[in-house]
Amino acid sequence: MPSYRAPVEETLFLLFDVLGFERHANLPGFSEASRDVVEAILAEAARVAEKSFQPLNRSGDLQGCERLANGDVVTPNGFKEAYKAFVEGGWIGLAADPEYGGQGLPHTITAAINEYASSANMALAMYPGLTQGAIAALVLHGSDEQKRAYLPNMITGKWTGTMNLTEPHCGTDLGLIKTKAVPQPDGSYKITGQKIFISAGEHDMTENIVHLVLARIEGAPEGTKGISLFVAPKMLFDENGALTTRNAVSCGAVEHKMGIHGNSTCVMHYDGATAGLVGEEHRGLAAMFTMMNEARLGVGIQGLSQSEVAYQNAVAYARERRQGRALTGPKDADKPADALMVHPDVRRTLMSIKAFNEAARALILWTAVRGDVGRVSEDEKERQAADDHMGLMTPIIKGVITDLGFDNTVKAQQMFGGHGYIAEWGMEQFVRDARIAMIYEGANGVQAMDLVGRKLPRHGGRAIMAFFKEVDGFLRDNAEVEGMKPFLEPLKKAREDLQKATMWFMANAMGKPDNAGAGAVDYMHLFGLTALGYMWAMMARTALDKKADGADGVDVRLATGRFFMERMMPETAARLAAISAGSEAVMALPEEAF
Amino acid sequence: MPSYRAPVEETLFLLFDVLGFERHANLPGFSEASRDVVEAILAEAARVAEKSFQPLNRSGDLQGCERLANGDVVTPNGFKEAYKAFVEGGWIGLAADPEYGGQGLPHTITAAINEYASSANMALAMYPGLTQGAIAALVLHGSDEQKRAYLPNMITGKWTGTMNLTEPHCGTDLGLIKTKAVPQPDGSYKITGQKIFISAGEHDMTENIVHLVLARIEGAPEGTKGISLFVAPKMLFDENGALTTRNAVSCGAVEHKMGIHGNSTCVMHYDGATAGLVGEEHRGLAAMFTMMNEARLGVGIQGLSQSEVAYQNAVAYARERRQGRALTGPKDADKPADALMVHPDVRRTLMSIKAFNEAARALILWTAVRGDVGRVSEDEKERQAADDHMGLMTPIIKGVITDLGFDNTVKAQQMFGGHGYIAEWGMEQFVRDARIAMIYEGANGVQAMDLVGRKLPRHGGRAIMAFFKEVDGFLRDNAEVEGMKPFLEPLKKAREDLQKATMWFMANAMGKPDNAGAGAVDYMHLFGLTALGYMWAMMARTALDKKADGADGVDVRLATGRFFMERMMPETAARLAAISAGSEAVMALPEEAF
Repeated sequence: MPSYRAPVEETLFLLFDVLGFERHANLPGFSEASRDVVEAILAEAARVAEKSFQPLNRSGDLQGCERLANGDVVTPNGFKEAYKAFVEGGWIGLAADPEYGGQGLPHTITAAINEYASSANMALAMYPGLTQGAIAALVLHGSDEQKRAYLPNMITGKWTGTMNLTEPHCGTDLGLIKTKAVPQPDGSYKITGQKIFISAGEHDMTENIVHLVLARIEGAPEGTKGISLFVAPKMLFDENGALTTRNAVSCGAVEHKMGIHGNSTCVMHYDGATAGLVGEEHRGLAAMFTMMNEARLGVGIQGLSQSEVAYQNAVAYARERRQGRALTGPKDADKPADALMVHPDVRRTLMSIKAFNEAARALILWTAVRGDVGRVSEDEKERQAADDHMGLMTPIIKGVITDLGFDNTVKAQQMFGGHGYIAEWGMEQFVRDARIAMIYEGANGVQAMDLVGRKLPRHGGRAIMAFFKEVDGFLRDNAEVEGMKPFLEPLKKAREDLQKATMWFMANAMGKPDNAGAGAVDYMHLFGLTALGYMWAMMARTALDKKADGADGVDVRLATGRFFMERMMPETAARLAAISAGSEAVMALPEEAF
Repeated sequence: MPSYRAPVEETLFLLFDVLGFERHANLPGFSEASRDVVEAILAEAARVAEKSFQPLNRSGDLQGCERLANGDVVTPNGFKEAYKAFVEGGWIGLAADPEYGGQGLPHTITAAINEYASSANMALAMYPGLTQGAIAALVLHGSDEQKRAYLPNMITGKWTGTMNLTEPHCGTDLGLIKTKAVPQPDGSYKITGQKIFISAGEHDMTENIVHLVLARIEGAPEGTKGISLFVAPKMLFDENGALTTRNAVSCGAVEHKMGIHGNSTCVMHYDGATAGLVGEEHRGLAAMFTMMNEARLGVGIQGLSQSEVAYQNAVAYARERRQGRALTGPKDADKPADALMVHPDVRRTLMSIKAFNEAARALILWTAVRGDVGRVSEDEKERQAADDHMGLMTPIIKGVITDLGFDNTVKAQQMFGGHGYIAEWGMEQFVRDARIAMIYEGANGVQAMDLVGRKLPRHGGRAIMAFFKEVDGFLRDNAEVEGMKPFLEPLKKAREDLQKATMWFMANAMGKPDNAGAGAVDYMHLFGLTALGYMWAMMARTALDKKADGADGVDVRLATGRFFMERMMPETAARLAAISAGSEAVMALPEEAF
């Protein structure tokens, strides 16, 4: 059976040693989040993840969610209690507005906690995770009345939230949405239509579920400009929040999926369900994007989370399982064979996952800190820079970390040989669970198009220019620092490849947009590698400083970073070559020739 | 529901147009295999794959195999009948010795048929596939008596075969095998022990199952030099082949696996089972390797098979599903959205799978033809060259084609967005089924070590030098051929990277074997890309010749090949860089630092 230990020390190292979390102590939220406080919160969250969530991961996968004849959905045994333990920690509303019962702490801490919860049990962690996204949308776009009606119960976890976007005929292309909203005399709406793939759409863990729903108001313009956002609770309630009657929204089926069996993925029927408009008419897509951006970072975290837990279990197996002898001669001559750990290819595999995990966690937290600063800073330039950064990094975190996170679960499974394919060892579940993260909240190809087609050109390329400027500043500031050379040179090379690819798009994609489409995924990965490499350079610098101060264990981090630089960064050149090949061969075939 | 159409035209193009199958018509077996004959055989095999195997693929996955309380194993509904249709085609013994009821045709044709059967239903195709491996081992190592006793019934498919290697504590490291064989006065042996992961170990499709078992004769030397190969039938039989009593071998459990649910993966108990020694005492591992080499090519074919069927279904979906608009403006302005096929990233994905599939099929058939020539040629040099080639290419075909084949099932699943994650669409099954091919018959990391540590240095590097010589000859012969430049230059570059990597090992791995171990997988993939690139150069040359002759549809193949060359070959440089980084960072960490 797999096990899991939350990497609290790693999170603290990144936040306080590498990212200078305490530098922002003058800002609201940050001022409450001293190292001691953060450490205590993370330790407690780690405990719930390890003790309450993780033991239910495999049983939840086996049992799955069941829809009863009356439309109720039963979640796996123990999920309700574990969910309760999580919400009692106050973690859903850790970063939410104190006015509605939140703790007003930085969202960065939520990101760290969500990693632990998701590593321990991704299917279970999605219930509170989706609620956080729904809270974010209501905070930004809900009326005061809606906030008062919904937020307190969502922040305590008494009610959960969902996102209802997809319909049978449309996922990526939300302009095709057919679900209808009919205005009522009292200002409310009646919603009718079918939604699919609704995570946590129906379940037995809370008394109420708050559905955020995209629909088209009767007579609205066609396409994305005619879509509005609504809030429709499963149970209607009076002005005191007391539940009254069941709303006309129900679960028609629970999907049979490759993984995350513990999360109920529902087909939802809206049969004239009572709903309130959130934000302005026909501006629903923009509002939903708020929620989606939050969710996309959350999905990136899921990618890391499965890579981390798969890694931990592969390491444990590589230590215990004995098979073959070291190439350099027997390590444990008194035993019938050496541990897997002696084999260079096993080491290479484990190092590649470890080197990714540490950099991916850095990238997520770096971006989360920027996001927090942007939310609360009084400096408009800082807020703008943070917004640019979030826009640029969201598709990269979602796309790259879930792609590589999935690959890493496959690699970790491979360490187990045949046992990795057998369900009881639990490694194949990580692969199946991680797979969804590449798909939902915008498939990774869509993330790449978002990056190349929208985020890159926005404001004349301001965001990527700021990224280059920051990296260049780092390269310059550290040029003479002893021990940094193995990190600076590959970073510089990657940065050059990224710039060349960007320039190639500028020169070749304006007049021929297929050139951008054909290179978008390669560009996203090229950017991701460069960003991860930058994280490693930052971590190396911190490690070297600590080493100079006489700290122990720093060489391990430096070696891990060197591995990343030597073995993983050379891929940037191949990505650049693929991008520069353009779209000609990509688009050459007539459709019938496939 | 997924569908499948066997690519008979592709197989014929490769065999007769690219690989010059008819050049060998003077050799036994080949002389019977004219284009007409081969086409008729393939068309009939395609029909059985499409009509009998494919419709059971998803139902077999859902139903799986069940072990009854009495130890019998029930296979999914319909499997028995579909198996019968397959064996009635005579395909198990297509290439087997006519003396025992085979048809004596080239094994290459079997390879082509196995691709179709496996694309249609991988779990089902394994039953006859394993039988073919067992036949190969008995042909080479069995006594005349054993051949007479077993081969006729295996060749007709009346009995199936298995390989029993793995035990709970040993998979890769077969030197640790504990299963015991005790000699009996009548010359037979009694086998006692437990084997795990035995594919098709018990089932209800045939009256008997022929187990080939590795065990240690009492008093044998420790390690791999004390292992012998035995044959133990499930049902004992008299000299007329009539079944008598049940042997003391039984299925203790059916494993719950990630995929290939339709194949019964058994824990096998040997409780003093009667068995005959195959080949010499203590030489069992060498004998088993015969079977394993056959099986490894078969597993490479499985990698291709899942990539092909996943591709076909992704193409169908990309044609039908409408989402978004072409970047160059609406293609079907009268429809609410364009087909997925208009999107460059969808095209890129489909092209990358298509370009791989065609080259992988070429590599498999090229190697299969060489193998056939080696088996029957009277020219010792030709036989030796064929043996070198098979040794070199077996780990590459197994390791590279299953790695990339799996990746391709993931890519094809991705084309479906959320629907790809839902079981009823069938795409996630291809991913789960394809995954095992990277693991069994020697995990791919072991393939890489076999390539680098054994096949490369054998006979002073004779095999790879022959490969370089052949490629160089091709490059030279085609240097002036109009239209070949886009193929020759990337091939030359890859060949140079491969040579540099080989030289790097020679210079750095002799004294420090960890440098070979750390670079082995990258080397295997570098070699694989080069070999696949060579296949594309060969296919392009044939296509250009056909074009000169006025053939239609050739531009599609040339464009597909250009895609491979432009977009996939640049990876060789990254592989070389990773190899040249050596083992220092790979091995730097103390074990406890992971």
